[in-house]
Amino acid sequence: MTPKLFYFPGNANLAPHMVLEELGVPYELVLVARAQNAHKSAEYMKLNPMGRIPTYVDGDLVISETAAICLHLADKHHMLAPKLGTAERGRFYSWLMYLTNTVQAELIFYFYPEKIAQGDAARAEIKASEEARVGGMFDTIEQELADGRPYLLGQTYTILDPYLLMLGRWTRGMKRPARTLPKVGAYMTRLLERPAIRRAFEQEGLKAPLI
Amino acid sequence: MTPKLFYFPGNANLAPHMVLEELGVPYELVLVARAQNAHKSAEYMKLNPMGRIPTYVDGDLVISETAAICLHLADKHHMLAPKLGTAERGRFYSWLMYLTNTVQAELIFYFYPEKIAQGDAARAEIKASEEARVGGMFDTIEQELADGRPYLLGQTYTILDPYLLMLGRWTRGMKRPARTLPKVGAYMTRLLERPAIRRAFEQEGLKAPLI
Repeated sequence: MTPKLFYFPGNANLAPHMVLEELGVPYELVLVARAQNAHKSAEYMKLNPMGRIPTYVDGDLVISETAAICLHLADKHHMLAPKLGTAERGRFYSWLMYLTNTVQAELIFYFYPEKIAQGDAARAEIKASEEARVGGMFDTIEQELADGRPYLLGQTYTILDPYLLMLGRWTRGMKRPARTLPKVGAYMTRLLERPAIRRAFEQEGLKAPLI
Repeated sequence: MTPKLFYFPGNANLAPHMVLEELGVPYELVLVARAQNAHKSAEYMKLNPMGRIPTYVDGDLVISETAAICLHLADKHHMLAPKLGTAERGRFYSWLMYLTNTVQAELIFYFYPEKIAQGDAARAEIKASEEARVGGMFDTIEQELADGRPYLLGQTYTILDPYLLMLGRWTRGMKRPARTLPKVGAYMTRLLERPAIRRAFEQEGLKAPLI
């Protein structure tokens, strides 16, 4: 049976979707009717008890969490990640965890401050704080890219790159979006030219501004 | 040179510390004088640009992020994680990402709401929201453990277990700490009996209540 990626356009599925296109392996996209709250339906939550998008289903294997799906796909196909047990793999893990537990986690409170505060003023403050904090994270990434490396980890394209592109894209409504930083902006623009990434954006029906 | 784990008692270093003791490999603990803000010093931030604890240093390899250090150690020593490319490894990744990007990430705002809000009322609201949200996460974990499995992933002890024990321990000041849930509480108590875990707690000088 063809593996399935449950998605909603532009959601966190975009990273594993770009990875699947890069790998060139068979898969099927399954739209989750988020507007109808289908990600909180009993049927979907049987697959993903946290009610989150994406979910990846390959036979009996059900994987939730964007970073987990990307890492599993890289492992399975022996591509897009450094070899196990190497120092490079250690550095790769540091970045992957930072992207998932800090950049992505804090972007979630930028988009949904109502998860942790009810009043308008408190929500606005959280949103503004997260905009500033995420901006600082991309400033750190800008410094990392200052040495001219083409990809986040160095000379080799890994799952970190589509992941970072997705997160950078999520800042496009901020006053200082990731694309406005010189190195990060050039990096994101370059990634957008990859055929696999173009296909993923097109298949999700994403419209300009893409980043 | 002996690898070093930079730590502060009870901080996020506790998970990789328990893993190192379980593996029985050589390492050295290096205290970060957090009370003197040493984790934000230029010297420490050369190792860890985010100024976070822990950092793991093995020769030229510097790894930040708790989950990254645990995963690297498991890979390097071929223990405490399912084999690469297996379905079990995929499930393991889903849990690891959830622990780091959701349980740990939200616990950080429970402890430090001032990161995203200034007023006393907003901070109190965030703290209370995170207490409720993290409580819900442990309720989900309680349901997972309802089938009587001894470890989070099933029959085998993995890095997920010390990680979850550390996070559960961080809820001990809440009205409804993780240890008060029947299955989670029994699981945490059982883990505390592991000699490797006892040694890590003792070496960090942790006092009762341990969980």
